[in-house]
Amino acid sequence: MFLKNCWYVAAWDHEVTGEPLARTLLCEPVVLYRTEDGTAVALEDRCCHRALPLSMGKVVGGRLQCGYHGLEFDAGGACVRVPGQAHIPPGAMVWSYPVVERWKYIWIWMGDAALADEALIPNWWWFDHPEWELVKGKYLRLDCNYELITDNLLDLSHLSYVHLQTLGTTDITEFPIKTEREKDMIRMTRWIIDRPAPPMFQKLGNFSGTVDRWQIVETFSPCHTQILAGAIDTGTIDPAKGEPVAGMHIRSLNAPTPETETSTFYFFGHARDFALGDEQVSADLFKMVSQTFDEDVVILEAQQKMLDREPDRPLIDINVDAPGLAARQMLRRDIEAERG
Amino acid sequence: MFLKNCWYVAAWDHEVTGEPLARTLLCEPVVLYRTEDGTAVALEDRCCHRALPLSMGKVVGGRLQCGYHGLEFDAGGACVRVPGQAHIPPGAMVWSYPVVERWKYIWIWMGDAALADEALIPNWWWFDHPEWELVKGKYLRLDCNYELITDNLLDLSHLSYVHLQTLGTTDITEFPIKTEREKDMIRMTRWIIDRPAPPMFQKLGNFSGTVDRWQIVETFSPCHTQILAGAIDTGTIDPAKGEPVAGMHIRSLNAPTPETETSTFYFFGHARDFALGDEQVSADLFKMVSQTFDEDVVILEAQQKMLDREPDRPLIDINVDAPGLAARQMLRRDIEAERG
Amino acid sequence: MFLKNCWYVAAWDHEVTGEPLARTLLCEPVVLYRTEDGTAVALEDRCCHRALPLSMGKVVGGRLQCGYHGLEFDAGGACVRVPGQAHIPPGAMVWSYPVVERWKYIWIWMGDAALADEALIPNWWWFDHPEWELVKGKYLRLDCNYELITDNLLDLSHLSYVHLQTLGTTDITEFPIKTEREKDMIRMTRWIIDRPAPPMFQKLGNFSGTVDRWQIVETFSPCHTQILAGAIDTGTIDPAKGEPVAGMHIRSLNAPTPETETSTFYFFGHARDFALGDEQVSADLFKMVSQTFDEDVVILEAQQKMLDREPDRPLIDINVDAPGLAARQMLRRDIEAERG
Repeated sequence: MFLKNCWYVAAWDHEVTGEPLARTLLCEPVVLYRTEDGTAVALEDRCCHRALPLSMGKVVGGRLQCGYHGLEFDAGGACVRVPGQAHIPPGAMVWSYPVVERWKYIWIWMGDAALADEALIPNWWWFDHPEWELVKGKYLRLDCNYELITDNLLDLSHLSYVHLQTLGTTDITEFPIKTEREKDMIRMTRWIIDRPAPPMFQKLGNFSGTVDRWQIVETFSPCHTQILAGAIDTGTIDPAKGEPVAGMHIRSLNAPTPETETSTFYFFGHARDFALGDEQVSADLFKMVSQTFDEDVVILEAQQKMLDREPDRPLIDINVDAPGLAARQMLRRDIEAERG
Repeated sequence: MFLKNCWYVAAWDHEVTGEPLARTLLCEPVVLYRTEDGTAVALEDRCCHRALPLSMGKVVGGRLQCGYHGLEFDAGGACVRVPGQAHIPPGAMVWSYPVVERWKYIWIWMGDAALADEALIPNWWWFDHPEWELVKGKYLRLDCNYELITDNLLDLSHLSYVHLQTLGTTDITEFPIKTEREKDMIRMTRWIIDRPAPPMFQKLGNFSGTVDRWQIVETFSPCHTQILAGAIDTGTIDPAKGEPVAGMHIRSLNAPTPETETSTFYFFGHARDFALGDEQVSADLFKMVSQTFDEDVVILEAQQKMLDREPDRPLIDINVDAPGLAARQMLRRDIEAERG
Repeated sequence: MFLKNCWYVAAWDHEVTGEPLARTLLCEPVVLYRTEDGTAVALEDRCCHRALPLSMGKVVGGRLQCGYHGLEFDAGGACVRVPGQAHIPPGAMVWSYPVVERWKYIWIWMGDAALADEALIPNWWWFDHPEWELVKGKYLRLDCNYELITDNLLDLSHLSYVHLQTLGTTDITEFPIKTEREKDMIRMTRWIIDRPAPPMFQKLGNFSGTVDRWQIVETFSPCHTQILAGAIDTGTIDPAKGEPVAGMHIRSLNAPTPETETSTFYFFGHARDFALGDEQVSADLFKMVSQTFDEDVVILEAQQKMLDREPDRPLIDINVDAPGLAARQMLRRDIEAERG
């Protein structure tokens, strides 16, 4: 039901420490911790002996020690000590997951470890570049399926109804969208020309009049969505040439990781190329984005509840659904290919 | 599992306003609101586009606007606007329920709209008549099946065990009941002769000694129960002639509407023909009735929980169950007839 | 799924009074109360009339009266009064369970009453003997299967990981255990020789140096575990001869009674043969034992949750599991024998 051979965000880098962290990912109990040299490790969070979550134990000399009977596991998941006996019983091990630390995130590979390829991690270099200011987001735990979040991000027409306080203006739906299907990515593009900037941009930009602004939303399979957004004084660039170098730019990077079929850890952060080092701007942006996403949570959880009542009942599609439907198709294709 | 072609109380009239009100009725999500001219409307509370409850949106120009993508629906349930596109997709509509406002209640017809006949609404004229003082009740949401409430109302012997603080006296079960079966109504009658009045009547009547009092409980299919109760000084009337014109009279009108198979919105109010306009009496009555019904809630929810453990285990019947059993028979007959 | 023809602890003696007490035991709703002469009674907690829990009623003249319609039941479970009618309907009765009051506990027999034999109650005479000081425990309600508690008590190696604040020392697993299987009892024995006493013993004993201490844990089918523990100055006795008469002795008596398959009422108390009458010692012991068991609750409930995810997945056994596995075997044998 999930794509397994791919990377998911398991945690922010700062969440994983010498204290074990429990997190259910793709319906599997996972424990995350760091060894003495700082390497992040992800193991199955269930002792092979009597099933206690290993996250209730502690890290002792780089090994994870069970909090019930003291069995110890190394970073590969092998049981390497059973108190009171020299012999380790055959089969005493827990699952170990490939882990990579990159772009401030801990990425985990939940499928076949032999296929884990770091090159498949989304290239979110903006999170780690001196010319961009990262505002680390937080994560939200939502009671909804993660694909509802992808739908939400690929259809920004909802800004006009859900987020008028922060990101939205009432005129967004007047401007058509373009949908592009690449091999492992879906792109939605919308240009809003010659209109007042929305509240967030008004506050941060230095615009004299109306602006041209763009929303370029790219979803990579299974569920990683980068939003390239920005604004510039109307009449200074040609939208047909794509996102301009000039103007203010924001990158919103979104990683909704399934906890279960109906709940999600939604990691998000954003980077900007203006007001670098300005902590007030960072705080304002964080506050606005948090408010925006809190507004989405209410919608998405209500939507999930209603969908759960009649899971097989058809829905009516409208024009702005095209990118979301394409992303769902891409993911179905990949899941079917993985199952063979 | 429910009778569909009949009227249920959906809400008190004052609950339905220009702000959408969500209420699950007979396991269906319903949204209630008023158009600009004050007409009450009931629609399916699930947008046909992406399933968000429409109750999370708002009423705009008499139409209900979805809070996610702004689709708008008219009072008949038709989608009449999709932001950003001129064409309304075929099939874009939600269910619309016939609604009638009468006797301070909003009545809803959950079955075949073509059969909705206002004449089938119970004739609760006491709620809207100058010679009767209505004390609007509230509604209770109970975790029990609605038929347990009908059982409760048709067997007032429980007053002796549950409601001694308000309506009950210990001697009720000494007096036999009479059960009458009419075509679409079950009637239970009990006369309690030459006894002290119960606390509530003592407080409100002006009795010199003992009273004769009556409980005439009439349940109309599926679940609407009117209690005609009253008291008069002993020896002044002949009980064999039925409820007298003299004495004090109370009408308790009860509409338990199923939310689900195991939960109920229980609407109730009462009218009296004495102390008209006396707000203190109204407040006292409201307080006593509320206390009484709160006592019932505890019983009914515990009963439901225990019944749920072993739904098919037979129960033992006693004499006072006759009216309740007759009402259950009447409802089964009607549900079977409806299913054909 | 449970052994039925055996005694379980239903309650502490002081819990059962003239006020009905509701308790679900082995998935059956039970109501406990005392008649006027103080005899404890256990009935099915479900009125045969309309299924209200009888525990919501009251004891009237030694009979249990239903709180809804006033039916009354005697100590044998027979309905002996129906208000308003002289005739008791055939079949009007609730289940009655054999009950014995012994060792401060109310014991209940949930199976065939004809087989209820008081001689089968564990002989926990220490709870009622002038040379032993009983510290009544409390009971804990745990969200775990009762056999997990038996596992826990038969494998005290976990003291080194879970209870270092109270009963544990880090060296326990250095000392091997012995497992003995008797007909209806499993015994685990461990001697810890020439080591410092754990915190609890340090505080209460009067030891000059290291001690020899013993843990003799005996589990009787289905789930009654007595721990004979103690300590004595190193070198003063011969462990090969078994528990010595000299030294300090503690008896920990444990009765985990299933509420459901995944929840348990865990009754426990302990007796000692030192510091008799010293209330400060009693209070200290109670506090330490309570802390210890609260530590276990966290472990056991987490274990149950994880086991529930994959109930059929095999576990890896280690040496210290031998007594627990033997107890599980004994219980399986008895349940199978009972089912025939």
